[in-house]
Amino acid sequence: MNIGIIGLGLIGGSMAIDLRRRKFADRIVGVDADKVNAAAAVKIGLVDETVTEEECVAQSDIIIVAVPVSAAVKVVCRVLDQFQKEGWTDKVVMDVCSTKEQIAQATMYHACRKQYVATHPMAGTEYSGPWAALPNLFDAKVCIIADQQESSPKAVAEIVKLYDALNMRVSYMSVSSHDVHTAYVSHLSHVISFALANTVLDKEKDEKHIFDLASGGFSSTARLAKSNADMWTPIFMQNRENIVKVTDAFIQKVQEFRDSIEDLDETAIRSFIDEANRIKRIIK
Amino acid sequence: MNIGIIGLGLIGGSMAIDLRRRKFADRIVGVDADKVNAAAAVKIGLVDETVTEEECVAQSDIIIVAVPVSAAVKVVCRVLDQFQKEGWTDKVVMDVCSTKEQIAQATMYHACRKQYVATHPMAGTEYSGPWAALPNLFDAKVCIIADQQESSPKAVAEIVKLYDALNMRVSYMSVSSHDVHTAYVSHLSHVISFALANTVLDKEKDEKHIFDLASGGFSSTARLAKSNADMWTPIFMQNRENIVKVTDAFIQKVQEFRDSIEDLDETAIRSFIDEANRIKRIIK
Repeated sequence: MNIGIIGLGLIGGSMAIDLRRRKFADRIVGVDADKVNAAAAVKIGLVDETVTEEECVAQSDIIIVAVPVSAAVKVVCRVLDQFQKEGWTDKVVMDVCSTKEQIAQATMYHACRKQYVATHPMAGTEYSGPWAALPNLFDAKVCIIADQQESSPKAVAEIVKLYDALNMRVSYMSVSSHDVHTAYVSHLSHVISFALANTVLDKEKDEKHIFDLASGGFSSTARLAKSNADMWTPIFMQNRENIVKVTDAFIQKVQEFRDSIEDLDETAIRSFIDEANRIKRIIK
Repeated sequence: MNIGIIGLGLIGGSMAIDLRRRKFADRIVGVDADKVNAAAAVKIGLVDETVTEEECVAQSDIIIVAVPVSAAVKVVCRVLDQFQKEGWTDKVVMDVCSTKEQIAQATMYHACRKQYVATHPMAGTEYSGPWAALPNLFDAKVCIIADQQESSPKAVAEIVKLYDALNMRVSYMSVSSHDVHTAYVSHLSHVISFALANTVLDKEKDEKHIFDLASGGFSSTARLAKSNADMWTPIFMQNRENIVKVTDAFIQKVQEFRDSIEDLDETAIRSFIDEANRIKRIIK
């Protein structure tokens, strides 16, 4: 199988590593708008060669679009245009974006819509670029396929095989539920981490030694604040409505807890913590 | 050296493990109000024996008070009373609490104040109880000694030796700066995690499958929400003033970021993230 990867960052690069060593991909070509990243991806050995986007589509059976979501909308449409123009009915394109609504809308009436599969592998780290790529990144994690009824069964089956090679558990969901759910379990965590980091960094302007005290608790809560703006700005913009709603719900919870503390309401503080402790059954 | 540990949980238990195997402690006796915990601490081998609080003080050169901060205020005072009553001038008592103001006030005028050292080893996990105790928990972390001028140089020197055996880096600070700093770098992270967990758990009541999507990002931001109410309720109450102030600063940051998202203000979103990224130089 020939695989083309457009966007050679953390996700595209990590897919390249595992698809190759697990023999799903015979040959991998890549595209990256950033010349340094493109050269690094070849040097690290993620891809066999970097080519133009058109060549990449021409040479590949499956095209993986792994660029930030604002760019992905355009790239997926261009790839489908090329499928149509060249009469390629067997090729499949997939994206890996964290918000799905806008690509869904942009591709909705495309003649080749059936050859596009909307996916979101729920895996990642706070690092970016081809040097952030890791083996086994996707193992045992969940991958969402969104609105699978819009893709041809054959295209879906091929992409499921690809995620099978990545050891992911595939789950199906509508585009709109996907975007609500990810607002809760991923995007909100990022809003929080960025805000926490800025709160403490602001304080640091007055007190130089504040970070001497930063222990493991802070590092884990603020870890996502290292995530980069190129990836996250378009996510926040595209999933705006859900994220605003979820953030408001969160602010209300923080405010409620803050008020219990201000009131020295021991019962309320304790029951808020006890309720939160139920998260133990979800995360290990 | 004979060590007495009052409170055989995560911190007390982890200190026992390393103080013994690094030969700082020849014998360790312990006290725990919870009978199951006390019995487990002996069975696991954290302490040689469990005894009454009075016997513990009588038998030990250094007494470590490792109970939640509301109880610690009373225990430290009782230990100092016993020092005074028995005329023991060589023994030293230390606490390990995450807020220092109230113990400082309660002990301020005690005749044996010089024999008490206020400490806060900045290490831990979200688990509790003697079974949560770990070797090497304190290695390379920071321990604060607060208001060291209130303790005798000899007492401080002994406690520094103890933290040296735990491989901690000792830092000195006033009680009031300590409580402000920990509000920023530890207590706020806990407020946030509890509120995040409750926000998502509330949503789960309507949508059963929301946690299928919970990926690594969520787990790290919500990890601290597993922390227990017995330890954290008194911390929030004792450090109320600082925590309320810091939480307000955080809410304002979240609100600012939320507004930029609602306004689709790309420049503002991007610069908020770029600023937050400066946290990279602090946390690894």
